[in-house]
Amino acid sequence: MSKEKEFEINKNKDFSKWYLKVLRKAEIIDDRFPAKGMYVYSWYGLDLIKKCISILELLLKVHKHKEERYPTLIPYSVFMKEKKFFEGFQGEAYLVTKTLKKELDEPLILRPTSETAMYYMWSMWIRSYAQLPLKIFQTVNIFRCESKMTRPLLRLREVIFFNEAHTAHATKEEAEEQIKEAIEIYRKFFDDLLIPYLIIKTPKWDTFAGALYNYDFLTVLPDGKTLELGSVINLGQNFGKAFDIKFQDKDGKKKYVWQTCYGIAERVVGALISIHGDNKGLRLPFEIAPIQIVIIPILKKDEEKEILNYCENIKNKLSKFRVLLDESERTPGEKFNIWELKGVPIRIEIGLREVKNNEITISRRDIKERIKLKINELERVEEIGKEITKNLKKEAKKWFEGRIKYAENLEELKKNIKEGFVKIPFCSIDENGKKCAEKLKEICEIVGTLYPEENKPINKKCLVCGKEAKVYVYACRSY
Amino acid sequence: MSKEKEFEINKNKDFSKWYLKVLRKAEIIDDRFPAKGMYVYSWYGLDLIKKCISILELLLKVHKHKEERYPTLIPYSVFMKEKKFFEGFQGEAYLVTKTLKKELDEPLILRPTSETAMYYMWSMWIRSYAQLPLKIFQTVNIFRCESKMTRPLLRLREVIFFNEAHTAHATKEEAEEQIKEAIEIYRKFFDDLLIPYLIIKTPKWDTFAGALYNYDFLTVLPDGKTLELGSVINLGQNFGKAFDIKFQDKDGKKKYVWQTCYGIAERVVGALISIHGDNKGLRLPFEIAPIQIVIIPILKKDEEKEILNYCENIKNKLSKFRVLLDESERTPGEKFNIWELKGVPIRIEIGLREVKNNEITISRRDIKERIKLKINELERVEEIGKEITKNLKKEAKKWFEGRIKYAENLEELKKNIKEGFVKIPFCSIDENGKKCAEKLKEICEIVGTLYPEENKPINKKCLVCGKEAKVYVYACRSY
Repeated sequence: MSKEKEFEINKNKDFSKWYLKVLRKAEIIDDRFPAKGMYVYSWYGLDLIKKCISILELLLKVHKHKEERYPTLIPYSVFMKEKKFFEGFQGEAYLVTKTLKKELDEPLILRPTSETAMYYMWSMWIRSYAQLPLKIFQTVNIFRCESKMTRPLLRLREVIFFNEAHTAHATKEEAEEQIKEAIEIYRKFFDDLLIPYLIIKTPKWDTFAGALYNYDFLTVLPDGKTLELGSVINLGQNFGKAFDIKFQDKDGKKKYVWQTCYGIAERVVGALISIHGDNKGLRLPFEIAPIQIVIIPILKKDEEKEILNYCENIKNKLSKFRVLLDESERTPGEKFNIWELKGVPIRIEIGLREVKNNEITISRRDIKERIKLKINELERVEEIGKEITKNLKKEAKKWFEGRIKYAENLEELKKNIKEGFVKIPFCSIDENGKKCAEKLKEICEIVGTLYPEENKPINKKCLVCGKEAKVYVYACRSY
Repeated sequence: MSKEKEFEINKNKDFSKWYLKVLRKAEIIDDRFPAKGMYVYSWYGLDLIKKCISILELLLKVHKHKEERYPTLIPYSVFMKEKKFFEGFQGEAYLVTKTLKKELDEPLILRPTSETAMYYMWSMWIRSYAQLPLKIFQTVNIFRCESKMTRPLLRLREVIFFNEAHTAHATKEEAEEQIKEAIEIYRKFFDDLLIPYLIIKTPKWDTFAGALYNYDFLTVLPDGKTLELGSVINLGQNFGKAFDIKFQDKDGKKKYVWQTCYGIAERVVGALISIHGDNKGLRLPFEIAPIQIVIIPILKKDEEKEILNYCENIKNKLSKFRVLLDESERTPGEKFNIWELKGVPIRIEIGLREVKNNEITISRRDIKERIKLKINELERVEEIGKEITKNLKKEAKKWFEGRIKYAENLEELKKNIKEGFVKIPFCSIDENGKKCAEKLKEICEIVGTLYPEENKPINKKCLVCGKEAKVYVYACRSY
């Protein structure tokens, strides 16, 4: 049991070690499954991920997306219909060609994403403008044979909680409006998770396979590397044409639909853990924590029953929250460590003194503060929970702002790139800028321009080629 | 829109046609996905399945099972550790050997079930008797290359909602107690779904690959064929030995764990739909229905606003239920058909008369009955919902009882087997009885003996070999 006490790693000094250890110790992920990039999700981590994803699912439903479920295995002939998309997934898509006993008639692809499965069906469903817009989402497992270093929650070969939304519209303008709606949905989602982000329009050369353009939500982890949190993609009519999704418009003419899609995955929970955690483990927002309040009895011989009864009473009075009364055999000190490690926002200690005085002692997980409340002041607990969330948000925001730097020359860029994002003047994010981006490859990646658009540079030069800078772009080293 | 009106198929005369049509029309399943045995789950079907599965998940949690999540792909070397199990899945397990670009170092198996993925991890986790029992469940997609005729929800190549529970215990006795607990959990679950069943102990020759013995929950569908609803399996120490799952017992000795597992899938929803449905579509239990109450305004020109306001008011007063106010452009008659097809238990009609009289008109989905309620009697709605559930249960029970026959000779067996189960005197359900079972193969399948055990036959002869009958077994034709 004393093992839990040993958890103290300097998160900012040794993030990689901190991350893996906190995942294992806090029962988020067991990373010992014998297949690269595939992990076991422990009860506490699973609960946390589900709580996070359900926030987004609810938002999508509020915005009139319907939830459906499509098969995991996609016939090869369906998967290859959109050429650029197919080429984009050449290296990553897993193939099923047989059972243990016999070859299949047609190979099946383990979905790396579900455009092709969905749009095959939509071409049968969509007939008239009156059926549009069609807005569908699902949360499913997907498979990508990542060649880079894999890492629990962040870089996976099986993503277990891929939330993908797909839409079809009658006009280009409606699809563009949908892109805006999707961005607002994701804004709200990441705000609820207290995760700070930049919204970036991807350069032409990095656009999603088969798409017109896409926006990415990006954040920074404590080691200064950036992480893509989610992607909002305008597919134009490419898939509509490849899958022959046509509708009869008001004017009687047959037209191809305009499509968008957007997705996030459990890596957002990896970001949440990494950004809010401290050297003692997780720190969770009050609204999201699987256990919001833990009650720890400080037992005294011969008074156990009285103290435990009082604990039960407090637990019942707080029943609108997710409360755990820890009656295990561990010492109070061990319990403190375990629940701190798991990031439970509010700890309530109850000993003989509390019972005698009709009070409770509260410790906040986010800051060192102990608060005594009388039993008739329990409604203040919710307020304290909200203060914790507010404080975590403020801390994260401040930290994130310090991670966005500026550079006008290579020296500055090299110096600042370790911190997170660096804004630089750049020649172009269409195909013309590709060369300059490639020249920076060993130092950093050009992720694109800010959304909403910033003021253009005036009298600045591209940091690489020295020609007139037409845009500010963001550079970073990414996961 | 008038298409919905056309749904009227005689369920008992042409069950197969009825089943496929009701799934498509009620937006449960679209069966046109271009891979055999894999289907698209429409919004209404998905919601219904999730509601059903969540009942079981809650029951498992109440009985102290923890939810975890294991990877979908299992390395070949792990999957083959338990020999009989491996042999049992030879024909069904899909293999992933490559990506679109390259061969994998080791083939991966798409899980047909998760024993091997889980127990590999457990061998690392379990060290001491103090960690036992370990009780874990997950709800995941699994893959089996079924060779028989596939059918939506019932016989699938991808099962999307496989709920599998796995346990490990220190002693044989504790594992046997767990089997009893699992049976009680499933009893409660199927009772909540109003699905009648027999619990059957499987004959030796049909036992789950790698197990000591198992119990199956079986029901009958309207065409007289039986369906396995769920299975409760005593694995003994076979997997413990194959995966080297040992613990140090109180006596200091190292011992192998004793294990059980039990599972159900979305086919229970297929059973629910088939058993309760009628010629107009689904009939759903009030507690489970995705939409419990639909309000249909009967609009009259110039009075639309008054009627709709009144509908909104009623909807708000019933907000503790899942209520839909259908304001679409369809005619009331079309709406009646659509929501009858979807099995919504309670329909409320509101026209000018209802507004003037401060009342509502209720129609029950299960029987032809119209009830008028005053606005101050709305609390009776819940009561009516419960009556619907009670009535569906009673109907299903009565119908099911008529599906269990008895036979003492081949003539009777052949005659009765079309109805459902036939109880027959039989020589034995250990290996000695296998020959007799095989002789009946063209007529029926021997599924096993009843649980809890029935009285043994006295002075009866085995219906096949004519030797003394030691047991009563149940015969049927199964899906």
